[in-house]
Amino acid sequence: MSSTKEMVFNFSAGPASLPKEVMLQAQADLVDWNGLGTSVMEISHRSKEFIQVAEEAEQDLRDLLDIPDNYKVLFCHGGARGQFAAVPANLLGSASKATYIDAGYWAESAAKEAEKYCQPHIYKAKHEQDGHLAVLPASQWEIDPESAFVHFCPNETIDGIEINDLPETDKPIVADMSSTILSREIDVSKYGVIYAGAQKNIGPAGICIVIVRDDLLDLAQNTLPSILNYKELAEKDSMYNTPPTFAWYLSGCVFKWLKQQGGVQAIEKVNREKAAILYSYIDESDFYKNSVHSNNRSIMNVPFTLAKPELDAEFLELAKEQGLVALKGHRAVGGMRASIYNAMPIEGVQALVKFMREFEANNA
Amino acid sequence: MSSTKEMVFNFSAGPASLPKEVMLQAQADLVDWNGLGTSVMEISHRSKEFIQVAEEAEQDLRDLLDIPDNYKVLFCHGGARGQFAAVPANLLGSASKATYIDAGYWAESAAKEAEKYCQPHIYKAKHEQDGHLAVLPASQWEIDPESAFVHFCPNETIDGIEINDLPETDKPIVADMSSTILSREIDVSKYGVIYAGAQKNIGPAGICIVIVRDDLLDLAQNTLPSILNYKELAEKDSMYNTPPTFAWYLSGCVFKWLKQQGGVQAIEKVNREKAAILYSYIDESDFYKNSVHSNNRSIMNVPFTLAKPELDAEFLELAKEQGLVALKGHRAVGGMRASIYNAMPIEGVQALVKFMREFEANNA
Repeated sequence: MSSTKEMVFNFSAGPASLPKEVMLQAQADLVDWNGLGTSVMEISHRSKEFIQVAEEAEQDLRDLLDIPDNYKVLFCHGGARGQFAAVPANLLGSASKATYIDAGYWAESAAKEAEKYCQPHIYKAKHEQDGHLAVLPASQWEIDPESAFVHFCPNETIDGIEINDLPETDKPIVADMSSTILSREIDVSKYGVIYAGAQKNIGPAGICIVIVRDDLLDLAQNTLPSILNYKELAEKDSMYNTPPTFAWYLSGCVFKWLKQQGGVQAIEKVNREKAAILYSYIDESDFYKNSVHSNNRSIMNVPFTLAKPELDAEFLELAKEQGLVALKGHRAVGGMRASIYNAMPIEGVQALVKFMREFEANNA
Repeated sequence: MSSTKEMVFNFSAGPASLPKEVMLQAQADLVDWNGLGTSVMEISHRSKEFIQVAEEAEQDLRDLLDIPDNYKVLFCHGGARGQFAAVPANLLGSASKATYIDAGYWAESAAKEAEKYCQPHIYKAKHEQDGHLAVLPASQWEIDPESAFVHFCPNETIDGIEINDLPETDKPIVADMSSTILSREIDVSKYGVIYAGAQKNIGPAGICIVIVRDDLLDLAQNTLPSILNYKELAEKDSMYNTPPTFAWYLSGCVFKWLKQQGGVQAIEKVNREKAAILYSYIDESDFYKNSVHSNNRSIMNVPFTLAKPELDAEFLELAKEQGLVALKGHRAVGGMRASIYNAMPIEGVQALVKFMREFEANNA
């Protein structure tokens, strides 16, 4: 086996870093899991061994998020993009409208896919405040009264924007939590549907978690593919077809790891500390800049720019030499982005700030 | 790391055994792939490192199946069940009919999902011949002239049935090759669409290969979710959204392994030899029975029953003690089933026959 580099901190926005302890355990067990002499990915999803994996993963997630009993937890194919279609096709019923709150790239993408199924009422919530990017308070969001639901994305990975409030509404609230789930405490009972692609805070790409209130299971359109139908998935315990078993297993390992860290409350504290270290340094520096208003700064994705963009390539190259990888910003916005999901240890953020400080000293 | 059992032969129908060499390499590389200090599942699907994985996997598959240039190769979410919906929703165009050849459980399931999109003309091709299960010759299949396409499943995993001929028709032929792809030579140019869930002959569950002729890309229905839209996937090189990267990587490793074995022609020879060993013994024995006609016996899935079904549990228990696992038949048909996909070495089949012979001697 090749030796593992000691000091790589991976700031990828997704597929993102997974907890090192989880990866080492998965490696140890890869060809002989549970004493079976085979990998967990080589056994039937209907075997008692895999059913136990599946059930434990669901229960651990229920524990971590304190999910009420009247919510189903589904493990789906198709990623969050699949849910951009699945949400309207499952929830519209006889309605033809839904409200989409637009505060960034992902919310906008969800609204675009929804046009296949309904007339999305799009409310632009992103605005400028004191020279910074910000999101209007949820109390001001304009919700179309004929909407079947209200969709929003509480953390925009590309823009580095986070939304911390919820609207007062009798419509089901649907949230794309791909890049924020399990990073901070939430009250699941306030939502109709929460969904999240795994590849940030949960596990490898190729699985998507859907948490859906059970009174919303009877509204699906006839032409919805069964693999995306909440009711069919709920009735079959997410085994309508062969699920992505290895991704489900690894997600379950991450849930157990998170419980060992003290759960969501404990990891939120660490996440806020990590974000504070990075934003504080950026704010005190004249060389780096983050343009999001402090009310809406993401604790998961921290985009920043250099005062001298011509040094971007050098910054990335030197960072990589120090084991600080995947810091390049999204192609839509340029600059840098440090994604500091649950699996990023505080030492990674400290190492990044140390490097940024040195780079500034050499180039300011 | 726990030690690997030497002698486990895994006859699971799917998720199935993967080549041992591939699994050992994946294990060695799991936490530090390609010298990056991270796993391949922790890097961006848009990184140059992953793009290379993706492109090589596609090229290797093209080489293995000699896929003509006018076919797109897609790596999709959703498994073959996702394609049960995707096929009609992508191919119907303005047609409202399609022909579904029914020779087993999976073909029937595909036809049922198709009812959401069209009126499937279902032709029952399974019949009894000389006291055995058989499939009517493709030349006799009744194809509705208004059909947009003809769908069939050339290998039925549960029934243990294989179809080796194709109808003469001007309609695009669509084949669910989940359990037969790469097991024997095929002429891709005869098909409109070939699709296959990975978890038998390709890789882990959670990825599905679609090979589609490029003149069929413009017929999709408006309400088809983008993640299942062939044209969108083709235009985006299967990265319309984050693909299941680890499953894609591992599939690519299996393709390279298969090339090292000499490709499809060479593995077909081994597969036919493996199947012949098992069927020959079953036929010479009075204790075991396979009820499929020799014309249609699957070389991938071999169901068989014991003369004394009350010994089923003991058979399974003793087999497991000898490292012969996952031999229980599908719950729909009972008995036993040995799935002997590409990754099953001939030694596994020999060990199974040796055990069956001993069990017969002790219990006949």
